[in-house]
Amino acid sequence: MNPLSTPWKARYVGAKVLITGGVGFIGSNLARALVEWGAEVTIVDSLIPEYGGNRRNLLGIENDVRLHLTDVRNHATLPALVEGQDFLFNLAGQTSHMDSMKDPETDLEINCRAQLAILEACRRHNPAIRIVFASTRQLYGRPESLPVSETHPLRPVDVNGINKQAGESFHLLYSQVHGIRSTVLRLTNTIGPRMRVKDARQTFVGVWIRSLVEGRTFEVWGGEQLRDFTYVDDAVEAFLQAAASDEAIGQVYNLGGPPPVTLRALAEMLVELQPGGQFALMEFPADRKKIDIGDFFADYRLIERALGWKPKTSLPSALAQTLAYYRDELPHYV
Amino acid sequence: MNPLSTPWKARYVGAKVLITGGVGFIGSNLARALVEWGAEVTIVDSLIPEYGGNRRNLLGIENDVRLHLTDVRNHATLPALVEGQDFLFNLAGQTSHMDSMKDPETDLEINCRAQLAILEACRRHNPAIRIVFASTRQLYGRPESLPVSETHPLRPVDVNGINKQAGESFHLLYSQVHGIRSTVLRLTNTIGPRMRVKDARQTFVGVWIRSLVEGRTFEVWGGEQLRDFTYVDDAVEAFLQAAASDEAIGQVYNLGGPPPVTLRALAEMLVELQPGGQFALMEFPADRKKIDIGDFFADYRLIERALGWKPKTSLPSALAQTLAYYRDELPHYV
Repeated sequence: MNPLSTPWKARYVGAKVLITGGVGFIGSNLARALVEWGAEVTIVDSLIPEYGGNRRNLLGIENDVRLHLTDVRNHATLPALVEGQDFLFNLAGQTSHMDSMKDPETDLEINCRAQLAILEACRRHNPAIRIVFASTRQLYGRPESLPVSETHPLRPVDVNGINKQAGESFHLLYSQVHGIRSTVLRLTNTIGPRMRVKDARQTFVGVWIRSLVEGRTFEVWGGEQLRDFTYVDDAVEAFLQAAASDEAIGQVYNLGGPPPVTLRALAEMLVELQPGGQFALMEFPADRKKIDIGDFFADYRLIERALGWKPKTSLPSALAQTLAYYRDELPHYV
Repeated sequence: MNPLSTPWKARYVGAKVLITGGVGFIGSNLARALVEWGAEVTIVDSLIPEYGGNRRNLLGIENDVRLHLTDVRNHATLPALVEGQDFLFNLAGQTSHMDSMKDPETDLEINCRAQLAILEACRRHNPAIRIVFASTRQLYGRPESLPVSETHPLRPVDVNGINKQAGESFHLLYSQVHGIRSTVLRLTNTIGPRMRVKDARQTFVGVWIRSLVEGRTFEVWGGEQLRDFTYVDDAVEAFLQAAASDEAIGQVYNLGGPPPVTLRALAEMLVELQPGGQFALMEFPADRKKIDIGDFFADYRLIERALGWKPKTSLPSALAQTLAYYRDELPHYV
């Protein structure tokens, strides 16, 4: 990649960038791009074993980033962390829907309360910072119509969605009322190298990939649900473009990835990519059915019109690159 | 009032009822009705000086209720408080929009985090409890169309609205997923005896009433904004009807009060009721303008159709009864 091939990339040369959740899946891919383009990257991550952080994600850039092993729930350290930063990519979060139902307080502490604390730290100690917040399609709940645009009603069906909605709203409010320039990206399923594959806490695709690489049959629950997928490099570009754009301030954009596929079709693509791979169709477990959202795919025309962003990576190519990564790297992720 | 004149009132004879915020404005009026109808009333209130609680509100029923001076942020006591209760009227809250912007963390602790803790206490220690949660029109933000029905998009314009939205969503989610039977009432401006008149933290009408009774000119900011008002006895009936109805489980209902009036018309009604009363029209202060919502009045046909509830008290009558109360009682409220 030529770091200066597009004007917005130039914004990051020598820029001071803080990434919360920067050892996680998307955060670490973002950190790698920023290091390559000459930014001064500081990372906050708590490396909670059940979350997305994995030291392997920083392989090769360990000495190019400053890593603070702290937690966004540790509000006392936030002022010192945000001070002097030009950009904040705010990705730290609890992502498991099931965990949010079993332990709702922890989800609230991280996805809601800590977000307000981060914004208060910015308001008091660095009001000129530029923020991009990682939100989620989970806010929409069960779609009323497809594709789902940003004006679709927000009706989260789990604790995680409720807290992420509050976290997102705080960012927009602080942008509007206090001038803390923020953009919200609502991510759909993101896949790619460095995602969590140990279990389904980040995405079910992780478990599928792991099973494939380990030569085991993976389970597909239901199978007919439609989903869309964004390759991580495309998601990273969206974060970087959004933060570099004044037009994006105070805005909410969906990410997406065409075309939507059924889970069964996704499984079929994957087994074709892995010799000997196979899957089994299973009925949807009852406890997951309660918080399942049915079909989902996002309308991402708004960010396309505003910033020119669109996904560049086809789904087969995204899956092939992800599989290739875990064929080599799986031992570091299980 | 004949306690058994309608079937739903019979549900409360001998019922065990917990009211959070029960020394506050609406909570204490609710407690008074429930005591009269033969319920066993337990009250939780923190009596924070800046909030709505005032011991005078319990005058005459002090010995008929159990009062626990605790705070919903004290999560450890919640299981013991909810255990054995048939009903929970969940009214404890921070209501000041301005305070929520100055001290957002406190607003979050009370209006968001404590609500989740209350629901978790119910889920673990009293899953058969019946809950009615006091929500607010503040969730709608600036109306797109009038009157505002329950399907209007939720776009809170202050920290208070964001946290109340999360608190409301937790109630609906716990009803749907965990079977904790809850109803949400979205209140508009509620007025009547026992409201806070010391300052505008609960409603600006309180300050107006106080000024009138004290013989001072009160300020009307703007003046052309349309608002609707529910008299507190009508609001109390809505809580009691909702909790007694199975149809209301998992539902969200607006309260309201016809017809909407401009703030200037409201001020004119008030000065007519108080000999020598007068007001001054002022420009809207800049810091309030930022979080003001413009015109608002609620569509409450949903609760009317579902439960037969509608406001019975006209606005002039509501204002007259409120003024009459504070002519005698003002020294206990300032």
